[in-house]
Amino acid sequence: MTNTELPIDVETEVRAAEERARPHLLTTPVVPSVGLTVEIGSPVVLKCDNLQHTGSFKARGALSKVLALSSGELERGIITASTGNHGAAVAHAARIVGAEALVVVPDNANPSKLAMIERLGARLHVHGSDSVETEAAARELAEERGMAYISPYNDPRIIGGQGTLGLELLEQVDSLAAVYVAVGGGGLASGVAGIIKSLSPSTRVIGCSPAASAVMYHSLEAGEILDLPSEPTLSDGTAGGVEPGAITFDILARVLDDFVTVEEDDIRQAFLDLIEMEHMLVEGSAAMAYAAARAHAVGVEGTTTVILCGGNVGTDKLREILDA
Amino acid sequence: MTNTELPIDVETEVRAAEERARPHLLTTPVVPSVGLTVEIGSPVVLKCDNLQHTGSFKARGALSKVLALSSGELERGIITASTGNHGAAVAHAARIVGAEALVVVPDNANPSKLAMIERLGARLHVHGSDSVETEAAARELAEERGMAYISPYNDPRIIGGQGTLGLELLEQVDSLAAVYVAVGGGGLASGVAGIIKSLSPSTRVIGCSPAASAVMYHSLEAGEILDLPSEPTLSDGTAGGVEPGAITFDILARVLDDFVTVEEDDIRQAFLDLIEMEHMLVEGSAAMAYAAARAHAVGVEGTTTVILCGGNVGTDKLREILDA
Repeated sequence: MTNTELPIDVETEVRAAEERARPHLLTTPVVPSVGLTVEIGSPVVLKCDNLQHTGSFKARGALSKVLALSSGELERGIITASTGNHGAAVAHAARIVGAEALVVVPDNANPSKLAMIERLGARLHVHGSDSVETEAAARELAEERGMAYISPYNDPRIIGGQGTLGLELLEQVDSLAAVYVAVGGGGLASGVAGIIKSLSPSTRVIGCSPAASAVMYHSLEAGEILDLPSEPTLSDGTAGGVEPGAITFDILARVLDDFVTVEEDDIRQAFLDLIEMEHMLVEGSAAMAYAAARAHAVGVEGTTTVILCGGNVGTDKLREILDA
Repeated sequence: MTNTELPIDVETEVRAAEERARPHLLTTPVVPSVGLTVEIGSPVVLKCDNLQHTGSFKARGALSKVLALSSGELERGIITASTGNHGAAVAHAARIVGAEALVVVPDNANPSKLAMIERLGARLHVHGSDSVETEAAARELAEERGMAYISPYNDPRIIGGQGTLGLELLEQVDSLAAVYVAVGGGGLASGVAGIIKSLSPSTRVIGCSPAASAVMYHSLEAGEILDLPSEPTLSDGTAGGVEPGAITFDILARVLDDFVTVEEDDIRQAFLDLIEMEHMLVEGSAAMAYAAARAHAVGVEGTTTVILCGGNVGTDKLREILDA
């Protein structure tokens, strides 16, 4: 496998994103996993992007993208559709470059997540009641007003930005044997697996999704992007469909070594164990990757890494999971 | 002020502890505080010892102490009294040196904390129903059996070990203007303030305790160690009395620049804000230091640091705080 077979040259995108975005990114810590190291029988570490700016890896891609826009584009402002981490990341990136950001949100979005997006300086535009409707509205507004639309994953700059996490990991962890990475639209996994497979081909990269919403998993199995329904999941950060024509599909088809799906009970247990044993508060998508490693990883030479992709859980959601 | 006025030479103790314990310690991350940086108007960072081995800074002191014991002492085993972080830290340190550890616990201790101490390989000995009784029992057993008693704070090796956190901080943070550190028995504050005042005298070090249990604060005000009652507090890691003759009293009288006490409502709010804004799950004593900085810190040249001293909150306690 070489990057030339991929729809984009991931390594080049990641290196360019690193160049643009590094001054604004945190090199997030890698800490040993007490629980998984014992359970699996070889060293396991947690890559804590829950401690990245805005509380998730999404800041990487958003900064990479926004910093690549022309001054004319920045002047007209940027727009996206999101109820969560991507919206906050775009708001954060826009503030850094001094651009206006408009985030289209559905009418049933979580008020505390909306407050965070507003606190970061973006304007909210309420439209529709699911991500398909809000995304369509955002794209339409972008076209009408000549504003740059920031896709959550289907964009080489976004994928390059997310891949900066992989570059950090290769510097931080000696003898990186395996990496577990959450997959929703596949932006993080494409960037991370793409750069790791370029620079350290023997490292295994394993995608993980909740069984309740594993559209990329089923699409990869089928060999084409499927339009499938999703059930509710604690891993809400990875929930939802995959856009027709998404370049992440073609990348992941080539760079992932394996793919694990995880049941809700196992995600909840991982969430609780992360609190009790690892002293780490994460959102469902990060607990999902931890649960996937627990079910799938075996003792190896070298270090296994679980990416904790986000920490935006909020006290309401936290209460809900604790009381479930 | 020079270290020669102190009852022990803190800098020498810290450097010796660093030498002994470093291979077994994590250099814990320093991350920007989103919330406090905005509120205070100059950079604030969080020193995350909630991510230290065993989930608190106590691993530093316990390792420093246990690694300084002779092989004969290690063979006879070590003993301590604790229901919490110190017990877990001693169990962890004992396992590293291959010594037996016995932890005396009261009959009303939190079962999940006891399970953690047992999981780390220590034996439990139930005696009495408060820390005064368990400590007396532990000291008696130590004498009877010729075992080394490991004090939670009143020991130069323990203070030296806790001070390794200060050494890390001086390397990690340029232009360290102020440090907020939780005070219970005063082991952490003595080590951290001691080394910082030696190496960076212009850095201000501010002690913090919950108003509900601020025995060291009132003792320092009075100029002598007082025997005062404590009310229940969310900052349970710093609760309780100060041992007569504790060397931490004489150290803190000389090295602290200021001392803040914090109300329970402000600790709870800090705990919730740490989750919502900083994506950080900590125990009450760490939230207490965050609340103290919020109330006391002002915009300065340089960086203000809040030490997050522990993360062992447990899901029961977490539920209790969320539902309060």
